[in-house]
Amino acid sequence: MASRRGLMFLLSNTFRAGAVGLRRNSRKFYRSGLILGITGGSLLGISTVSAKELVIGLSDEDDTALNLEEFMATPITPSAILETSSEMMHRMELLCLKVQGDVCREIERIEGTTKFKVDRWLKCEGIEGGGITCILEDGAVFERAGVNISVVSGNLRPEAVKSMNSQGRDLPVEETMTFSAVGVSSVIHPRNPMVPTMHFNYRYFEVNPDMSEKQWWFGGGSDLTPYYLNEKDAKHFHCTYKSACDMHGPSYYARFKRWCDDYFYIKHRCMRRGIGGIFFDDFKSKNADACFSFVKSCADAVIPSYFPLVQRHKNDPFGMREREWQLFRRGHYVEFNLLYDRGTKFGFTTPGARYESILMSLPPRATWRYCHEPSKGSEEAELLEVLRHPKEWVTV
Amino acid sequence: MASRRGLMFLLSNTFRAGAVGLRRNSRKFYRSGLILGITGGSLLGISTVSAKELVIGLSDEDDTALNLEEFMATPITPSAILETSSEMMHRMELLCLKVQGDVCREIERIEGTTKFKVDRWLKCEGIEGGGITCILEDGAVFERAGVNISVVSGNLRPEAVKSMNSQGRDLPVEETMTFSAVGVSSVIHPRNPMVPTMHFNYRYFEVNPDMSEKQWWFGGGSDLTPYYLNEKDAKHFHCTYKSACDMHGPSYYARFKRWCDDYFYIKHRCMRRGIGGIFFDDFKSKNADACFSFVKSCADAVIPSYFPLVQRHKNDPFGMREREWQLFRRGHYVEFNLLYDRGTKFGFTTPGARYESILMSLPPRATWRYCHEPSKGSEEAELLEVLRHPKEWVTV
Repeated sequence: MASRRGLMFLLSNTFRAGAVGLRRNSRKFYRSGLILGITGGSLLGISTVSAKELVIGLSDEDDTALNLEEFMATPITPSAILETSSEMMHRMELLCLKVQGDVCREIERIEGTTKFKVDRWLKCEGIEGGGITCILEDGAVFERAGVNISVVSGNLRPEAVKSMNSQGRDLPVEETMTFSAVGVSSVIHPRNPMVPTMHFNYRYFEVNPDMSEKQWWFGGGSDLTPYYLNEKDAKHFHCTYKSACDMHGPSYYARFKRWCDDYFYIKHRCMRRGIGGIFFDDFKSKNADACFSFVKSCADAVIPSYFPLVQRHKNDPFGMREREWQLFRRGHYVEFNLLYDRGTKFGFTTPGARYESILMSLPPRATWRYCHEPSKGSEEAELLEVLRHPKEWVTV
Repeated sequence: MASRRGLMFLLSNTFRAGAVGLRRNSRKFYRSGLILGITGGSLLGISTVSAKELVIGLSDEDDTALNLEEFMATPITPSAILETSSEMMHRMELLCLKVQGDVCREIERIEGTTKFKVDRWLKCEGIEGGGITCILEDGAVFERAGVNISVVSGNLRPEAVKSMNSQGRDLPVEETMTFSAVGVSSVIHPRNPMVPTMHFNYRYFEVNPDMSEKQWWFGGGSDLTPYYLNEKDAKHFHCTYKSACDMHGPSYYARFKRWCDDYFYIKHRCMRRGIGGIFFDDFKSKNADACFSFVKSCADAVIPSYFPLVQRHKNDPFGMREREWQLFRRGHYVEFNLLYDRGTKFGFTTPGARYESILMSLPPRATWRYCHEPSKGSEEAELLEVLRHPKEWVTV
């Protein structure tokens, strides 16, 4: 028990100092109490603690009813609060923790031996909260897969408010305003070019102006980036989200499918990043429970929408041509994420942002070629045609 | 003679339609008159005309005294104007054409058999002018080398004026304003990780407000991005530019060296893109000739500053470790260019921008790894130390 207490002391200190790195299944380090030490802000060389054991350690003492073993690391909000609170921030944190755990486990199950590296980190520079970054690199099936959650709060700077208003919101600019945000986001880059890359992100925002009423909204979506078009896969992916949407509103799928095509647009290339899925922002109504329930349905659709495609194609034959095409298209992925993605931009302008967690969305490798265009009639050209002219994959 | 006239007719038409692709040393296509056809805006499959012959073709008819054979393609401004004009725009276009030709020839000389692809393109969407994009890919020594010139003019939108003012200029925002710009820019990515990447850019801007006096300025610089630090190389590079600067002003080198360190800063990583060189903007004085002469000295320093390093290291031994480090650092290069570089941003917001010419600066291949940090005391760590804490390479 002594070593557990020692660990908890270390954690409670390091949370303020910067961040703590966790790697699952490294029991020996934990047992021997070998903590390599934490330098300000650096996460390197400290991946020594078993997240699973840490969670058990905490639950031993807290004796909560939450199934903490489902999560990749200790929640950011104390579990005693999470267990009893009915606040949306806390309900959403629990949803994000669960999705993160489920997706990581599914990836590890398919992967076999390669495991996720888990970094639990805390914010500084005036922002409260933290996050849990899970990343798996150089796997047999997955070249890079990242699943991030973050739970943050702080003061919104006027520029941030103006930027939010420029996207159609109506927040008072002249007041001091606190905000809270919780979200899960993930990008999964498989090795085999016949398996698409997938991205999803589900998030909840609250802003609290000094003088006026609290405002809140949800945002999120899931989208698919294949390297070769497979109609059956595209239909399966879109159908899964259509079913999730249809449970909550008859117009949701059509609206959020179009929004997705519009959002993931690489303007200079006049093409989409991929074949879409759903995307929504500013999602709110009088019934917060109904909103949460919709977001939960979408998040629950992540595993059935994508992993059957991984299973179907992970052993498909491919050669140099397909690999080079995959890397070339990953260059476009980089361009979208660094030039256009609002999430990336917002991340980089947030004080104390953890850039390694933001850049986790980038592919492990990418290439650029001048004026490269696949030959007419090729399968590569067929994909570009759909990226330039999005299709309807399911009957609305 | 007929086929030359036919070619000129084709060019004068295609300039309006979009762009024409040129490949040097493809005499047979030209002689046989096999022009594959130009589709709107696409440059693909049309690289059929010898730029060298085209230049000869024009000079036969124009009989100018300009040494057009030095250039990679026909100037954007008619050579009859360039030959006689004393306007700075035209003097600068000639300088850019000459630098482009010199650098491309030097690269081809070292490369041996791989030649530059030359695209001469013209603007549309309310912007006059065009450019010449020269690119060499998959060479034995150079993995990717691009040398671009552009000569454009048009109307400045108020947002562009505001953006220019935010960088310390004082242009009237309420007026319509025309602008002209001419510049050469280049990024050279060698294959061997012991050879640094080099970037240079020299440019001239004029803005003509309706009601007030014309304003003009020069900008530019050269900077080096090594993968492994070699003090002798760093000193040689910086010394060459110090000599160029010293001929024009005793404080220039120190000022522009610091500006370079400040500009090529990857904010989220708290490190520079490389070991710098010189960078300046808003360079103007009462004596425009003296300004031009300074810029010319810097541009003339490009070849002696860099190519001796290529010769020295192009056959250095290296292995997987060095190659992987090079690709990882090239990921940082991509981050700087897409997230921070003002030139890239300005390019993408200009109507009718030719994105392939802008993105030519990206490396051919790049990788990303989560929280990767070289081990303490390694040569890779030694480089990062200098990127985090820039050094003085020559005594000022």
